[in-house]
Amino acid sequence: MVVIIKPDAKKEQVNTFLGWVRDMGVETNVVVGKELTIVGLIGDTTKIDFDLLRSISIVDDVRRIQEPYKNANRKMHPEDTIIQLGERQIGEGFFHVIAGPCSVESREQIGGIAAHVKESGATFLRGGAFKPRTSPYAFQGMRAEGIELLVEAKNQTGLPIVTEIMSVEHLPLFEEVDIIQVGARNMQNFELLKELGHLRKPILLKRGLANTLEELLMSAEYIMAGGNRDVILCERGIRTFETAIRNTLDISAIPFLKSRSHLPVIIDPSHAAGMAWMVPALSRAAVAVGADGLIIEVHNDPQNALCDGAQSLRPEEFEALMGDLRALLGVMGKSLSADEAVTAE
Amino acid sequence: MVVIIKPDAKKEQVNTFLGWVRDMGVETNVVVGKELTIVGLIGDTTKIDFDLLRSISIVDDVRRIQEPYKNANRKMHPEDTIIQLGERQIGEGFFHVIAGPCSVESREQIGGIAAHVKESGATFLRGGAFKPRTSPYAFQGMRAEGIELLVEAKNQTGLPIVTEIMSVEHLPLFEEVDIIQVGARNMQNFELLKELGHLRKPILLKRGLANTLEELLMSAEYIMAGGNRDVILCERGIRTFETAIRNTLDISAIPFLKSRSHLPVIIDPSHAAGMAWMVPALSRAAVAVGADGLIIEVHNDPQNALCDGAQSLRPEEFEALMGDLRALLGVMGKSLSADEAVTAE
Amino acid sequence: MVVIIKPDAKKEQVNTFLGWVRDMGVETNVVVGKELTIVGLIGDTTKIDFDLLRSISIVDDVRRIQEPYKNANRKMHPEDTIIQLGERQIGEGFFHVIAGPCSVESREQIGGIAAHVKESGATFLRGGAFKPRTSPYAFQGMRAEGIELLVEAKNQTGLPIVTEIMSVEHLPLFEEVDIIQVGARNMQNFELLKELGHLRKPILLKRGLANTLEELLMSAEYIMAGGNRDVILCERGIRTFETAIRNTLDISAIPFLKSRSHLPVIIDPSHAAGMAWMVPALSRAAVAVGADGLIIEVHNDPQNALCDGAQSLRPEEFEALMGDLRALLGVMGKSLSADEAVTAE
Amino acid sequence: MVVIIKPDAKKEQVNTFLGWVRDMGVETNVVVGKELTIVGLIGDTTKIDFDLLRSISIVDDVRRIQEPYKNANRKMHPEDTIIQLGERQIGEGFFHVIAGPCSVESREQIGGIAAHVKESGATFLRGGAFKPRTSPYAFQGMRAEGIELLVEAKNQTGLPIVTEIMSVEHLPLFEEVDIIQVGARNMQNFELLKELGHLRKPILLKRGLANTLEELLMSAEYIMAGGNRDVILCERGIRTFETAIRNTLDISAIPFLKSRSHLPVIIDPSHAAGMAWMVPALSRAAVAVGADGLIIEVHNDPQNALCDGAQSLRPEEFEALMGDLRALLGVMGKSLSADEAVTAE
Repeated sequence: MVVIIKPDAKKEQVNTFLGWVRDMGVETNVVVGKELTIVGLIGDTTKIDFDLLRSISIVDDVRRIQEPYKNANRKMHPEDTIIQLGERQIGEGFFHVIAGPCSVESREQIGGIAAHVKESGATFLRGGAFKPRTSPYAFQGMRAEGIELLVEAKNQTGLPIVTEIMSVEHLPLFEEVDIIQVGARNMQNFELLKELGHLRKPILLKRGLANTLEELLMSAEYIMAGGNRDVILCERGIRTFETAIRNTLDISAIPFLKSRSHLPVIIDPSHAAGMAWMVPALSRAAVAVGADGLIIEVHNDPQNALCDGAQSLRPEEFEALMGDLRALLGVMGKSLSADEAVTAE
Repeated sequence: MVVIIKPDAKKEQVNTFLGWVRDMGVETNVVVGKELTIVGLIGDTTKIDFDLLRSISIVDDVRRIQEPYKNANRKMHPEDTIIQLGERQIGEGFFHVIAGPCSVESREQIGGIAAHVKESGATFLRGGAFKPRTSPYAFQGMRAEGIELLVEAKNQTGLPIVTEIMSVEHLPLFEEVDIIQVGARNMQNFELLKELGHLRKPILLKRGLANTLEELLMSAEYIMAGGNRDVILCERGIRTFETAIRNTLDISAIPFLKSRSHLPVIIDPSHAAGMAWMVPALSRAAVAVGADGLIIEVHNDPQNALCDGAQSLRPEEFEALMGDLRALLGVMGKSLSADEAVTAE
Repeated sequence: MVVIIKPDAKKEQVNTFLGWVRDMGVETNVVVGKELTIVGLIGDTTKIDFDLLRSISIVDDVRRIQEPYKNANRKMHPEDTIIQLGERQIGEGFFHVIAGPCSVESREQIGGIAAHVKESGATFLRGGAFKPRTSPYAFQGMRAEGIELLVEAKNQTGLPIVTEIMSVEHLPLFEEVDIIQVGARNMQNFELLKELGHLRKPILLKRGLANTLEELLMSAEYIMAGGNRDVILCERGIRTFETAIRNTLDISAIPFLKSRSHLPVIIDPSHAAGMAWMVPALSRAAVAVGADGLIIEVHNDPQNALCDGAQSLRPEEFEALMGDLRALLGVMGKSLSADEAVTAE
Repeated sequence: MVVIIKPDAKKEQVNTFLGWVRDMGVETNVVVGKELTIVGLIGDTTKIDFDLLRSISIVDDVRRIQEPYKNANRKMHPEDTIIQLGERQIGEGFFHVIAGPCSVESREQIGGIAAHVKESGATFLRGGAFKPRTSPYAFQGMRAEGIELLVEAKNQTGLPIVTEIMSVEHLPLFEEVDIIQVGARNMQNFELLKELGHLRKPILLKRGLANTLEELLMSAEYIMAGGNRDVILCERGIRTFETAIRNTLDISAIPFLKSRSHLPVIIDPSHAAGMAWMVPALSRAAVAVGADGLIIEVHNDPQNALCDGAQSLRPEEFEALMGDLRALLGVMGKSLSADEAVTAE
């Protein structure tokens, strides 16, 4: 950290300040210039309260030089993290497509979609059991029963499952869930993150609608500080002034996160766009920009031709998309993890 | 709701759609124009999934006419809600100032500040026991012990206390807390909101950094739907592109919320500004715009002249501010609740 | 400026860099620490290209310490600027209300409104002659004729006039305009700002919808660098994610701008809110927060009771508001400039 | 448009309103429901003032059904616009890469870069002669001389040129410029747009930092309404709360604009990212998402190894990128326009 001291600070004040900082185990490097004095803080500054420092009366400004995250930082861990999940590997070079319905609605529904997406090449099954809904009057998910149905679908298809947790209290229900998802609204539910840090199970951490990329990495840090190193970051669109599209997919987040951190990064084009017709274009962009995977909503409603599913692809649309993605992955020198597995067999 | 049907929709499709809507217990009013067909949905549409409706293939757009909140809606409850807390009343006409430190740090600290702010006219004592911190390495609050110290300070000064909850699991610790605060990051922690709906204790609900005013009212609705009608809304600044000031205080939120809802609305100028010197100006604006109260950070650190407290006022600054607020309240035809109480005695 | 050098920079590279910087007439102060090297740039750094500096391969980051504006900076000019316009003074302590219709529509309209607002205490008349409209098919203003009608109204009432310029080419038409307004969309029309810098006439500079406060001050700097020191800053709401209200009035901009700059700062509550009913509350907040004036839309349409004017007050509403503002100004130790003038006579 | 009438409106008021609307040449379709009355406005509603309509006292809300743009609307013009520029075609299926330095600095610089980018496959040369700079103290471009140097480079390489205009007054200097660029800050400089509408020369219209996609299309409409149909839209990043990256590239803008409009849409990854290392990833995403081209900054500074050019690629980086883009274009069933031309020869 670099601390800029106000020009009118008295010498004794500066000395008191330096003593206070050193008491926290941080070394100081003072430069006295004509117009201003600059103090460099050297050592482990992660414990120093940035806001408190700025609040000191003789301090003009504080500039952070080192990132406030350690475990998630590529500088501390230059190689890409590859998460091992059974025989599957998640991370740079292993592209995954997590697919499934927005919500689990019935055994037939989740089973049918699971079979479909597997056939098209999806490598994970997703489905919401606990649903964060803006309105208390909207469907809140099948909850415990939804998770049971997901596990059944996993047993039938062999696809590992990803589903969202909304409260620490529900953790016992997630025993057989392969990847636990933290939704955008809970990205800074710090008590929940701490608990997930004690698990030995990958966490899919979605970026909050108005959270910076640094805050996303700090939330990953909460989980990793507890000992759980298997965090997958997910960009799912941010809230901006634009209203034509539900959320603004921050595509630049992928190269940025991959340069700052060694963790895998995936994209959720379905929630970002909120419109199924836009999902294929955004999914292609995700591959080309260098993401490590996608999480895509697919629905299955043959009896009701009326419904498109605002943000969900029909199975045949998903299948066509997977073909396009394979071609692009080829150009990028990657392949779908499921395809590799098939080849390996 | 008004549903606009696509021009190329077939008659049978429209009929199927109308049947589907009516099955949900909602009446339809169809207007067939030359260029487009419009369907008005009449009745209780709060259960209709807005996004699902938009996703139907023949639907061009859906426009909500009625607000999706009921209990928090002024149309359903035209008179201002006045929350009764012992002898105190909170709501339109009863201006409150909730004051205290950012975090509870020690018995001396919280006791000293409590005595000070009471003397200056504060009507509630605030102080953080559980602290939501971006970094896992930062001080997380005194937790249970912090609440105990708050209760002690309450017993000594007679000031009722306000403090933040971060997890459903901590609820038993909040027995003697007078108003439970839900922080900005938990505004859409729906599982927590549901639990608070079962209490009979006022909830101070802070707006999320990037949540719309409608979403804030929907979160109030979560609490009220559970039976707890005593919700106080709090504007504390939103996240925008501007970086010179920590958050952008959305002053217009006050007249907007008070026109749409009957709930009390207060302002937190300390967190919005992030700089103590700006708090008095914003506090005056809060009175003039018609807020029902303020929640202000005050610190007490006489032995360490170095620290200003980035966003906390010194006791003497707080006292001066209270004088200004009293004068403005007079012009607005209001008075500080504590002063009234004194007058009444 | 403080330049942080990358840890892996070679000594010769640092020396080349230092030479390059000194060639620009800036002194350097180098601190070599264990982990990083910091270079302080001392002297007039306003000509240094911030982005170019950051782009240098051995540079990790650049932090500005001094503001990039000089003429608008309170540090260079501690006393408040008081603009003298005939017998009127504009600035700290002299509160002004600029009132009038959105657009000039006819002699009767502008004349009628001018008489009304003068009677209620307005100190300036506003009215749009050139109208920036999102749609090319919308009314673009009466243009030259509109300005003529404004001048007529000025001659009849004695109220000086404020109206917006949209192109350098129209400048000759603004001879008799007292204050030239630069609208939000032209805040960074730098060629226009340069021309206005050559005038000796106050400029009312509105903040762009998505411009930072520093950018607003830099645009003022464009005008001042040309020799015209009479710039009035205007906060009129910014674009955020919130859609319930047209723009988010950034009330904190007032104390911020007044602390950083000596220029007068006013508020436009009409454009911010976009709804007339909200204008009185925001106007009161403007007085309480310390603004130097208001620019308010007032319409006059007695024959058409149907129209409220989305964001315009009716004359009687404006009159009532002026009464409230006078009372608040009294508490703030200020008075309406027009009242003072009356008192002085 | 659909107008929702307030429940308490009186019958005569509604009739007065209907008469007023019909006087504007628009038909009305009234639906009287139990709880509300809805009026559909049918016909050419582009001239109706949306805000005025909302301001009518008996109107609860107004919802637009048809887009307010006509000439730019795909509904009115289903086939993609292909702009013919000499032998070049711009639009769907013809991918272009516009490359060159941020600013024209000297004959050697622009000539050298022009030769390089042509060899790598660029199809247009870009370079700033008039530079919009936040600070009045920063380099404002070589202006007229810069354009002359661009024209020289065009004559030497055969690459048509693209450069930015900042004021109507400079138009005579743009005679030999092939595509005139309107920068983000001038996207709503309506007087400038009107003038450009009278030209017969393609306009590259960049999206403003905080302008919606609808506003971008309305600005295109300003140009097209004047008779100039050759508008190229450009997404260059928007301003959001995220500060880690200069602007947030709104990648979803491409599929959105291409679905709503028939105009070509390109991406500027250099200004969005502000960091050269991120440009290749974003450029690849642009191809995959379906953009019609890219505008990329390339610099040429062999003698000064120190400078990377914050957002400019080095010639060899640009060459490598072009190889990647060709491969991706192949998968997308497209090819670089320059390559086609070569093939055709």
